[in-house]
Amino acid sequence: MKFQPPKGTRDVAAEDAIKLQKIIDVVRNVFEKYGFEPLFTPAFESFELLSAKGGLGEGVKDEIYFFEDKSKRQLGLRFDLTMPLARIVTSSNFPLPFKRYQIEKVWRYDNPQAMRYREFWQADIDVVGSKSVLADAECLACVCEIMQKLGFKDFSIRVNSRQLLEKLLEKVVTKDKLVDTFRAIDKWGKIGEAGVRKELVKNGIIPDKVFDVIKISGSNEEIIRTFGRKGRSEGLEELDSLIDYAKTLGFEDKIKIDLSLVRGLEYYTGLVFEVELGAGVSCGGGGRYDNLMKKVGGKDIPATGISLGIDRILEVMKNKNMFKENLKTTKIFVASVNEDLQNRALDLVKFLRENGVPCQIDLMDRDLKKQLEYADKIKSKFVVIVGKEELQRNEYKLRDMQAESEKIVTRDELLKFVEVGG
Amino acid sequence: MKFQPPKGTRDVAAEDAIKLQKIIDVVRNVFEKYGFEPLFTPAFESFELLSAKGGLGEGVKDEIYFFEDKSKRQLGLRFDLTMPLARIVTSSNFPLPFKRYQIEKVWRYDNPQAMRYREFWQADIDVVGSKSVLADAECLACVCEIMQKLGFKDFSIRVNSRQLLEKLLEKVVTKDKLVDTFRAIDKWGKIGEAGVRKELVKNGIIPDKVFDVIKISGSNEEIIRTFGRKGRSEGLEELDSLIDYAKTLGFEDKIKIDLSLVRGLEYYTGLVFEVELGAGVSCGGGGRYDNLMKKVGGKDIPATGISLGIDRILEVMKNKNMFKENLKTTKIFVASVNEDLQNRALDLVKFLRENGVPCQIDLMDRDLKKQLEYADKIKSKFVVIVGKEELQRNEYKLRDMQAESEKIVTRDELLKFVEVGG
Repeated sequence: MKFQPPKGTRDVAAEDAIKLQKIIDVVRNVFEKYGFEPLFTPAFESFELLSAKGGLGEGVKDEIYFFEDKSKRQLGLRFDLTMPLARIVTSSNFPLPFKRYQIEKVWRYDNPQAMRYREFWQADIDVVGSKSVLADAECLACVCEIMQKLGFKDFSIRVNSRQLLEKLLEKVVTKDKLVDTFRAIDKWGKIGEAGVRKELVKNGIIPDKVFDVIKISGSNEEIIRTFGRKGRSEGLEELDSLIDYAKTLGFEDKIKIDLSLVRGLEYYTGLVFEVELGAGVSCGGGGRYDNLMKKVGGKDIPATGISLGIDRILEVMKNKNMFKENLKTTKIFVASVNEDLQNRALDLVKFLRENGVPCQIDLMDRDLKKQLEYADKIKSKFVVIVGKEELQRNEYKLRDMQAESEKIVTRDELLKFVEVGG
Repeated sequence: MKFQPPKGTRDVAAEDAIKLQKIIDVVRNVFEKYGFEPLFTPAFESFELLSAKGGLGEGVKDEIYFFEDKSKRQLGLRFDLTMPLARIVTSSNFPLPFKRYQIEKVWRYDNPQAMRYREFWQADIDVVGSKSVLADAECLACVCEIMQKLGFKDFSIRVNSRQLLEKLLEKVVTKDKLVDTFRAIDKWGKIGEAGVRKELVKNGIIPDKVFDVIKISGSNEEIIRTFGRKGRSEGLEELDSLIDYAKTLGFEDKIKIDLSLVRGLEYYTGLVFEVELGAGVSCGGGGRYDNLMKKVGGKDIPATGISLGIDRILEVMKNKNMFKENLKTTKIFVASVNEDLQNRALDLVKFLRENGVPCQIDLMDRDLKKQLEYADKIKSKFVVIVGKEELQRNEYKLRDMQAESEKIVTRDELLKFVEVGG
């Protein structure tokens, strides 16, 4: 009888766990540098809250883990980190803007696919209370720094303005076809250009006119100038100002205006963003959602934010070999030549730890050969061998497991060596 | 309409979240220094696994969040981090000993009490595959270092041997009363000495004889010597050896043998531990559980470990004022005298962040007075005021928010000042 993780979920163990943790650490440090504060919320929320996001209503039940507690309260595992944020904002009095980050798991009852799980980590930043495009720009600057710190070179962030797109489409399709048009464009990622074209035709919309709008290419400035000539609109000004801020903050080269970006129909109200890791792989996105707080019963408070999918980032970084070879934390395995020297070995372990050096010792009463095999298996960088002769001279044998070289060192030399070479 | 967190759960926000995160960081760093590796497992497990822990069986349903997925798979939110570990160990081939740590949430359907939630954080270390008492000692050494790093001075770890206690009790109660005796002693924390006495009498056990055993006092060495005279037993040797290791590793003063420590009846097989923060407040415990892997269908693999309750540690540290006053990450709020200088302020923000200084800028188009009020509310240590006159001399006004003092600085002076004084 062997137990497995429940369908759609997985364990993250060994080096994968260390890698996941490294990513989370980088993300968190940058979030904090940009002035976002941590938040932790319960894994489950009332179903009433979860169904308030709009669009789905009761239908959300099909897409989440829904259950009742023993007092028949209707609950569900959260499907994102935005609804908990909305709950907190509408029932607290944080000074505005409230800038929070949250890095926790969410759950969705999708059909499991490649690189998609029913349980996954999201890392969100949101600025609640600011209408300013600078709030959007700060979120994007923060994400750009994260991507750079993680080692991504060819990432980019596609941006669009829902208002601008709507205004432009209003000129080429009739008002009653607008929602269908949006819906068709939104499927681009799934069904491709040909699919969108077919979908438009099916709905009685002339695809070429739509494609003339959403396929406009050129630099960000060229695109903005193009529409500027035709009369500036609210959405255009926001995009323009976003690009300006991106220039000042030094990440304009990472931003690409893309008029085909929609990101769903029910939620976003203005600027939308999508973070791409190259080759069409998205690892997150976001945008402005100025109506949500009112929808969950709060005041009319604007908000913008961005969400990163940590599991996706982990997958891509693994595939691209972006991690340094040996991430294991144990630097030194302290082996002893025989059992009688265990106390002396423990004494060294104590000394190393007091000096902040991660180390381990044999816990299996094994002989030296077996100890070395284990040290190799757990990928310890060094092994210190505690032997009687060396001890008499207050020395130890230090073996570099990768270089397969050995040298004799004192305690202090050992420390120095580990600090420099380890 | 205001939404609340589901009953028994809570949000951890603002300074509490920063504090929780600080505790987790300290715990994690020490875990890693002792050679434990991270593990993440799904929030829910199959009910079959959860009910295998022993003792409860189907009854565990009353104590957990139980639900079915849309394919009628029986699932439950995990109530501890040991069952997922057992699942992984019995279905993987990690080199033994497998030393893992896990810091994640668990859920129990308790009736909410003070300092007890239905959702809480556990931080576990376990050594799987080693019978050696050194494995137990390493876990305790690790926990002692954590407690010291967190700033606890009067913490202690009570330890006992279940085997020793059983052997000693066998001499004073008849074999058929043994389980009742254990069960009564186990309630000490809840019902106190008088309650245990009453419970024993009710079961026809003479309390004084039992109390003679479990109330033995004296130093660890005295207690061991007492039983040594009466003939050494397996349990005694383990305790003896644990104390020896504690001496070598330098934490013997934190260990207290307590023969009244039981920690449940169904799970632990040898040494048991309980971490106390003073005044009878426990923040975790553990022990040896050599039968669990076999019970969940794996090989006969010994294991020992210890689990810390992070929420409890947070509560106690808050109550004892153990955190430094200002934990906020934002060091500098960059304010500008008027809107025209926003770009220059952004430029400074960019410079500060490039140099690793956490900072923020106004996102609300507010006047200087309002900006300063906000900086005060979010407890920013410093405010830099970007003004036209100072800019002409490439200088900024730096205000220390706590000292309420101001000085004029260049960019480089600003950096140096923040590094030293910030």
